[in-house]
Amino acid sequence: MYGQMMRYPLTVPAILRRAARVFPDKEVVSRREDEGLARATYGEVYRRVLRLMHVLRELGVRPGDRVGTFAWNSQRHLELYFAIPSTGAVLHTLNVRLGRNELRYIVRHADDRLIFVDRCLVPLLAPLAAELARVRFVVLDDARRGAEQGLGGALDYETLLDGAREEERFPELDENQAAGLCYTSGTTGEPKGVLYSHRSTYLHAMGSGMVDSMAVSQRETVLPVVPMFHANAWGFPHAAVFTGAKLVLPGPHLAGEPLADLIERERVTLAAGVPTVWNLVLRSLQKKPRDVSSLQNMIVGGSAVPLALIRAWKERHGVTVTHAWGMTETSPVGCCSRLRTATLALPEQEQLAARAKQGIVVPGLEARLEDGQGQELAWDGKSLGELCVRGPWVAARYFGDEQPGEAFTPDGWFRTGDVATIDPQGYIEISDRKRDLIKSRGEWISSLAMEGAALGHAGVLEAAVTGRPDALRGEAPVLWIVPADGARPPAPAELVALLAQRFEKWQLPKLDDVRLVAEIPKTSVGKFDKKLLRKRLLQEQAAVSPRDGGST
Amino acid sequence: MYGQMMRYPLTVPAILRRAARVFPDKEVVSRREDEGLARATYGEVYRRVLRLMHVLRELGVRPGDRVGTFAWNSQRHLELYFAIPSTGAVLHTLNVRLGRNELRYIVRHADDRLIFVDRCLVPLLAPLAAELARVRFVVLDDARRGAEQGLGGALDYETLLDGAREEERFPELDENQAAGLCYTSGTTGEPKGVLYSHRSTYLHAMGSGMVDSMAVSQRETVLPVVPMFHANAWGFPHAAVFTGAKLVLPGPHLAGEPLADLIERERVTLAAGVPTVWNLVLRSLQKKPRDVSSLQNMIVGGSAVPLALIRAWKERHGVTVTHAWGMTETSPVGCCSRLRTATLALPEQEQLAARAKQGIVVPGLEARLEDGQGQELAWDGKSLGELCVRGPWVAARYFGDEQPGEAFTPDGWFRTGDVATIDPQGYIEISDRKRDLIKSRGEWISSLAMEGAALGHAGVLEAAVTGRPDALRGEAPVLWIVPADGARPPAPAELVALLAQRFEKWQLPKLDDVRLVAEIPKTSVGKFDKKLLRKRLLQEQAAVSPRDGGST
Repeated sequence: MYGQMMRYPLTVPAILRRAARVFPDKEVVSRREDEGLARATYGEVYRRVLRLMHVLRELGVRPGDRVGTFAWNSQRHLELYFAIPSTGAVLHTLNVRLGRNELRYIVRHADDRLIFVDRCLVPLLAPLAAELARVRFVVLDDARRGAEQGLGGALDYETLLDGAREEERFPELDENQAAGLCYTSGTTGEPKGVLYSHRSTYLHAMGSGMVDSMAVSQRETVLPVVPMFHANAWGFPHAAVFTGAKLVLPGPHLAGEPLADLIERERVTLAAGVPTVWNLVLRSLQKKPRDVSSLQNMIVGGSAVPLALIRAWKERHGVTVTHAWGMTETSPVGCCSRLRTATLALPEQEQLAARAKQGIVVPGLEARLEDGQGQELAWDGKSLGELCVRGPWVAARYFGDEQPGEAFTPDGWFRTGDVATIDPQGYIEISDRKRDLIKSRGEWISSLAMEGAALGHAGVLEAAVTGRPDALRGEAPVLWIVPADGARPPAPAELVALLAQRFEKWQLPKLDDVRLVAEIPKTSVGKFDKKLLRKRLLQEQAAVSPRDGGST
Repeated sequence: MYGQMMRYPLTVPAILRRAARVFPDKEVVSRREDEGLARATYGEVYRRVLRLMHVLRELGVRPGDRVGTFAWNSQRHLELYFAIPSTGAVLHTLNVRLGRNELRYIVRHADDRLIFVDRCLVPLLAPLAAELARVRFVVLDDARRGAEQGLGGALDYETLLDGAREEERFPELDENQAAGLCYTSGTTGEPKGVLYSHRSTYLHAMGSGMVDSMAVSQRETVLPVVPMFHANAWGFPHAAVFTGAKLVLPGPHLAGEPLADLIERERVTLAAGVPTVWNLVLRSLQKKPRDVSSLQNMIVGGSAVPLALIRAWKERHGVTVTHAWGMTETSPVGCCSRLRTATLALPEQEQLAARAKQGIVVPGLEARLEDGQGQELAWDGKSLGELCVRGPWVAARYFGDEQPGEAFTPDGWFRTGDVATIDPQGYIEISDRKRDLIKSRGEWISSLAMEGAALGHAGVLEAAVTGRPDALRGEAPVLWIVPADGARPPAPAELVALLAQRFEKWQLPKLDDVRLVAEIPKTSVGKFDKKLLRKRLLQEQAAVSPRDGGST
């Protein structure tokens, strides 16, 4: 027997309709390339989306076609976020930090027909244009200047919109139709695409408005610093539009100073981004104080959040940092560290420790831990296993794959590749990416935990830990350190002494394995490129080993 | 092209699994008939649900069968809320305040096979047992005592559970399968059933965890005073379990004093119920102060909330009263009065005025106003029209009906029967039930607005306004007043003078039309029975008119 409730499809245009109807006066503010601020209301954005839908049809975009974007966070990018899926086509957000080979591979694999590009990003894309003969380009801000930079023949966004009428109706959409496509950074093998549906996008936006998740609401002024080309900017654009939150978009200006300015000027209340960004903003505020008293909550993820960062934001600016975890495959919000009532009754120090964990699985998703044999592990805070998740906004397989493949369990859960513990209170703590764990004397060392400890030294800006083969220990940890600007570079002995407060003696790196470097290489999504670091260590060792049988 | 996300069905057992997995230690506290408190954790409730599923199967309950409950808010009722739909059967909550004829009609219309009943409610149900020969009864607390009160042969809940093993797996459910059934009070015609699906229940629970809706979260201790036999207790049991909130259930003890005790004792933070209940609690607190400082938010609906109530809770106890509106047909949450940031910047008095409106349509639903010809009306705060809604937790037709019928528009929206305005900020204000509006001199008078104004008098406990036919005015308002205990009864002239502050002269009731009564008759869901009041007035007039042509 079926229920007799409305068969109301959960779609991306339904998210936009709510903002247009209930919050037509709320603003979207975006910083332009020239640093000026562009302002529009949701009512205006809605009408531009209707015209953009018309433009897309006129350009021959058909349901199911993939349409690329190569752009920073801006109002125009937001318009594309809604117009493309509203016509039944698929929004494919291209990561502007990709290398040329990956970019070529992804555009071809997705079979993009049309790519919308920021004028300032044209130099990155233009060299590929000749090889992507099937693709047409639209420059978001001034095609004439785009042409000067190598994209001759590209169309101009505003000119197209000027000539378009508003579509009068939305096509009927099946909620399981594809709405978006995003490729993972793929530190192993080729990049893999995740094909979001309207339903998954809608449910993820709804979930992001829950108190126990991102808590986006009409009361907030939201600043997503996480890019709209990376995992849907963690879903903040959709959630802000759904709830009618004011949306502030930073454009290409992601340094500490312009972000601090933007928070002050637009009275941002809720901001989201990776730890590095919030370190930069903290430093900028130290150099030049500003009134950021409007800011109350900050969602931080992408890599483990150091305790020092959580503490500094709370103590200096009264901001609560909420740690969150997710992946492109999980839309991305998977868990977040909203403290339980029982935890809030604990002393400050223990609360902080809970905040530093990735948090509790959000309502809507389910989590479990698996050992190497597919057996489920206990939530005891000790058992270390691969985190597996399932739920309505988790990928079932990769774009173009007929079968789910190895990233999925036989009973249909997604294997995240992250190794974690879950404690009896449900707090998930990610120890490491599966391939980044270091196995020393038969025991695991978590590179993330060691990096977090090293960041406790005031002279450390960045810290990465990787393993190198070691005849005696199996693997030995190597600590890569970028010293902080202006501070005295830390001595290896000091760092090892600091780590000794948290790690056993056998886990510590040797003094020779503490390496002060000017930079740690990063992937296109800003994570440490540990694959490259490990390769360097192997090459060094290969060069040395034949002569003296290993370093000391 | 379809998205490649998990086909994860949105079902009632998935809601329960989250509480069992992530919040096994959180409590459900229920007040028993003997006033003692029963305590269990979600972990314990989960295992009892698994046994109850086994019991249901053993009793021959098959997918699609309707299983009735006739019970107050309690842990056992909560177990039924989850076990019945988890087996694929349909939870049918019977309103314990129904008259015998309605009850018989509804049990037969639903074709209930099994009814679970509170021992203290047996006397209401027993007289019908002989006429409902197909139905088996289970007494929730002590079948032996139930038998003494006329339900011989009834089974005993705890005995059944004691003899059951835990089901090992949940059956696979389609999210569109029926999960629940609830009949509307039906002040016109026969009662009508709304058949909820797993999907609608899940999405409603998710929506209830959103900041802009009920904002239920793991941080809260939730007390739903609204009965679980009425519109799913506004969805609070599902939302509390989904988010892991502590749940406090008052059993049959709904007077001011036991509720105030419960709030103090269990440190309730979020409570929900009709205005009358919160008036009773206020009065109880005045007589006997208690520490209710834990209470922060109160969701009030079911009838319009008087400003005086909102103000008293804020001023005396620091509690924010949030007005909400919904119907059995909308699962029920439709809108709630979370204030917009722009409103929060207004003076206190204007904020209060916004709080007294029913609020903004919640994320997930869409609202519009229609005139009598099906034309859409503007959101200008003035145009009065029928509120229509649509969304994934709104009924598409009534149980047993092949076609949607008159309560639905040709394009598939639900006609609520409520007449409302919507202002440019999106605040919906219900003026009246369509049939309760009074048309005087060709203009509408809102009975709800007049009732609210009359409640501003300290000597008024309850106020109802209905129309009576009037030769000159078409209809004239009649004000029914129940004086407050202990206060000086208000003089009709005083009341009319009070109304004159808000209403035009031609809208005011005549002095003869102000009627002080000991009680206003109510329907089974506790609303004023205006149908009966109107009938009384017509009878009076029929008795008088032939002689003198109308009252003065």
